[in-house]
Amino acid sequence: MFIKNTWYVACTPEELAGKPLGRTICNEKMVLFRDNDGKVSALEGFCPHRGAPLSLGFVRDGSLVCGYHGLAVSGNGKCASMAGQRVGGFPSIRSFPTVERHGFVWVWTGDAAAANPDTVPHLAWADSPDWAYGGGLYHIQCDYRLMIDNLMDLTHETYVHASSIGQSEIEDAAPATTVDGDEVITSRHMERIMPPPFWASALRGNGLADDVPCDRWQICRFEPPSHVMIEVGVAHAGKGGYHAEAQHKASSIVVDFITPETETSIWYFWGMARNFKPEDAQLTATIREGQGKIFGEDLEMLEAQQRNLLANPQRGLLKLNIDAGGVQARRVIDRLILQESSQQQVAEA
Amino acid sequence: MFIKNTWYVACTPEELAGKPLGRTICNEKMVLFRDNDGKVSALEGFCPHRGAPLSLGFVRDGSLVCGYHGLAVSGNGKCASMAGQRVGGFPSIRSFPTVERHGFVWVWTGDAAAANPDTVPHLAWADSPDWAYGGGLYHIQCDYRLMIDNLMDLTHETYVHASSIGQSEIEDAAPATTVDGDEVITSRHMERIMPPPFWASALRGNGLADDVPCDRWQICRFEPPSHVMIEVGVAHAGKGGYHAEAQHKASSIVVDFITPETETSIWYFWGMARNFKPEDAQLTATIREGQGKIFGEDLEMLEAQQRNLLANPQRGLLKLNIDAGGVQARRVIDRLILQESSQQQVAEA
Amino acid sequence: MFIKNTWYVACTPEELAGKPLGRTICNEKMVLFRDNDGKVSALEGFCPHRGAPLSLGFVRDGSLVCGYHGLAVSGNGKCASMAGQRVGGFPSIRSFPTVERHGFVWVWTGDAAAANPDTVPHLAWADSPDWAYGGGLYHIQCDYRLMIDNLMDLTHETYVHASSIGQSEIEDAAPATTVDGDEVITSRHMERIMPPPFWASALRGNGLADDVPCDRWQICRFEPPSHVMIEVGVAHAGKGGYHAEAQHKASSIVVDFITPETETSIWYFWGMARNFKPEDAQLTATIREGQGKIFGEDLEMLEAQQRNLLANPQRGLLKLNIDAGGVQARRVIDRLILQESSQQQVAEA
Repeated sequence: MFIKNTWYVACTPEELAGKPLGRTICNEKMVLFRDNDGKVSALEGFCPHRGAPLSLGFVRDGSLVCGYHGLAVSGNGKCASMAGQRVGGFPSIRSFPTVERHGFVWVWTGDAAAANPDTVPHLAWADSPDWAYGGGLYHIQCDYRLMIDNLMDLTHETYVHASSIGQSEIEDAAPATTVDGDEVITSRHMERIMPPPFWASALRGNGLADDVPCDRWQICRFEPPSHVMIEVGVAHAGKGGYHAEAQHKASSIVVDFITPETETSIWYFWGMARNFKPEDAQLTATIREGQGKIFGEDLEMLEAQQRNLLANPQRGLLKLNIDAGGVQARRVIDRLILQESSQQQVAEA
Repeated sequence: MFIKNTWYVACTPEELAGKPLGRTICNEKMVLFRDNDGKVSALEGFCPHRGAPLSLGFVRDGSLVCGYHGLAVSGNGKCASMAGQRVGGFPSIRSFPTVERHGFVWVWTGDAAAANPDTVPHLAWADSPDWAYGGGLYHIQCDYRLMIDNLMDLTHETYVHASSIGQSEIEDAAPATTVDGDEVITSRHMERIMPPPFWASALRGNGLADDVPCDRWQICRFEPPSHVMIEVGVAHAGKGGYHAEAQHKASSIVVDFITPETETSIWYFWGMARNFKPEDAQLTATIREGQGKIFGEDLEMLEAQQRNLLANPQRGLLKLNIDAGGVQARRVIDRLILQESSQQQVAEA
Repeated sequence: MFIKNTWYVACTPEELAGKPLGRTICNEKMVLFRDNDGKVSALEGFCPHRGAPLSLGFVRDGSLVCGYHGLAVSGNGKCASMAGQRVGGFPSIRSFPTVERHGFVWVWTGDAAAANPDTVPHLAWADSPDWAYGGGLYHIQCDYRLMIDNLMDLTHETYVHASSIGQSEIEDAAPATTVDGDEVITSRHMERIMPPPFWASALRGNGLADDVPCDRWQICRFEPPSHVMIEVGVAHAGKGGYHAEAQHKASSIVVDFITPETETSIWYFWGMARNFKPEDAQLTATIREGQGKIFGEDLEMLEAQQRNLLANPQRGLLKLNIDAGGVQARRVIDRLILQESSQQQVAEA
């Protein structure tokens, strides 16, 4: 139920500061660590000596040292040393390919031979001085596809986020969904509406009037395995909407990397990239706090929905026009999983 | 293991104030809500759109609106509206018959066609100005029949409630159990005993001496599915006991509605109805607090007993004379469940 | 997976003060209590009346009285009395042989007929005025054999207890393991090392210099079912090490009684016996506190190791020279379990 031959966001660099990080990704229990040269590695979290979790260990020279009896394992999974022992014949443990790029650590849980760092998604905003990024991480007990559904159907903002980004005009504007290869795009445009609190604040922050009619847009882009980037913004009405010039609008990109932990839990890396006032760290912090609060509102709903679905496995769900983004994203995922499965069968035959 | 074609207490009106209430009754996960006209409804707690729990929704006009994407469902389970959608073809969800009466909301989890509001138990004290009622709700992890056993054998008061209503004379007085149709009655009378603390306090509250010998009675009445009303009281000795005139006694009715949640958990609505000083709200509050503390003493025992029974499924239990009330109540329950099962087989044949 | 015909430490006398103690040992759910004559008994924790846990009861005369309806059970498991009942025909419950000796209560979960108090381990230090003992109890979620492994391979001190008793010289000194009947002995001797903080403190406490080279020893003795006594100490270098005279060394016995609760949890009775300043109660308290802190460091590791092993049942573990003590101890255990199993088959044939 997961695409395996792909890059998932495993953690942020901050999470690796000082000590190893135990984390399960796509059901693989692993430990991530940064060695003294700064290189990040991911190993199976199981010491071959006595089965202690390597996440309780520490980094020494280029190796991760088990915190129980001191077996040291290199980033490639080979036993490097152990006091008083010859480790040549010790079994290796699995090493997962990793790449650190764009402010995230990416990990590959599929066939290591197929891991190509060049296929890590390109995030233009991540490496440009014209952009600033702030974000956070939530651990949520739900199927990763429920979060994709959530992000590809922003109708829920009217209900779940009524006090910040929701407004009734969202559900009055029918979205349009298109599929382009593996990418799914759901767009919604609202015209001549009053901006809701979050966007009123963003307009003011940009030195723009917040009490005039605006055009608002939401363009959700799903890419496998489970990334959703959403272009969002408002422009003073009649200035071109999405295509308005910078001085008439407030806009940003909502960034969502959804990393499956198990079938029913995720690591949800959320954030916002903006190309105005990128040097303003205080603004980054303020936006991050506001977004964290808003996105936190989804947690209770998603976890309750997940429990409800598990308790009612026989129930079908509706697939309305507003659900098209999630439905199409699931089709892409299913196709890629099937493809991996076929390739594996060929490889094994 | 539950009687289904019957009325259970689902909740109190206070629990419905302001927002919908999610509750499981007889393994049915439901949401209860009061619409703008004051009518209470109970729906399956599953939104037909994407499976969100309707208990996270809100009431608008006559409908319950899902808190995720806004599908509105009427009290009869039919989809009423959704912004931008035609809901005519949407599937309905199950609606459970409800009645609000005697200060409680009653729900029917069986065959809806058989639900007759006239069969809600008649509670004379609930609608009379001569009586006052105060009570509370406990959520307990035990089979509802263990709570019936508990209430039909008050021998346990000597041990579990030693400091309030227990006294050794209880176990010295053998109870008598009779069965009248579906009703089971266990009576116990103690003569010329000193009143225990709770009853000494009640006598004083009634302006009666508390340091004189009294006659004490406990008349437990079980009615299906799982209601137990207990007439309890003390009278100054020699004044007629249970039949003494009002100026010689302190008495009340202990009210117990035991609503199964699952096989091993209950919603326990407990309370006390009294026909003295019914206008004294402070007295109601005091009694309620005292009773809540006493009845809370049963929780640890019942939950520990339940765990012990689950861990020892092969063990038989004793059925002594003091257990006759519970044993007979279980026979009534078993007979009615069998009867429902037979009727259903006939209906399906 | 447990040796049954043997004595386990069930509890300390302090744990029985005032009220009965519910405890599970080798999967047997029992209640321990001390009667008015001071005799300790252990009964199955299940009241034959209605299945209430007897651990919620109380002691009256020579019996344990159920806290629900008052059935009294004698230490031999026979029903002794119940108000208003003739208990002659009531079923008995299982009684487990117990012995109180050497400051512990010992229990036998196997064939009661085979229980011989003379086979309770002799603990010379426990009853001698020349020795003092202090200890504690930890409840740990791990297989009891993981704790035996832990104690028979003190290499882990360097990693888990780096700030107190660990030092790199431990892993540089290869241990030697010998087997003598059912006893397994792993010894390690370090020469001319500087004492780590714990031992430096002990030397000072003994009026000895702590800044001079020392010889250090650790002699771990496993005896079935799961007792590990460890002779530990340091002596000023060149004074004979383990055999040095008292005025040149600081030494003690680390006491470990590991009582299985379930397959994956233990009651771990740890302590230290010393033969210096036995009358100094303050010293006993100080050592106890220090040891409690150090031994607490093992908990996280053992529980994490246990979870890791359960999640990876197919994985093999290494058996290095440092693991020989644990490996040999498991062989003794396996042999004795097999022996019990054979005897039982013969008995049943």
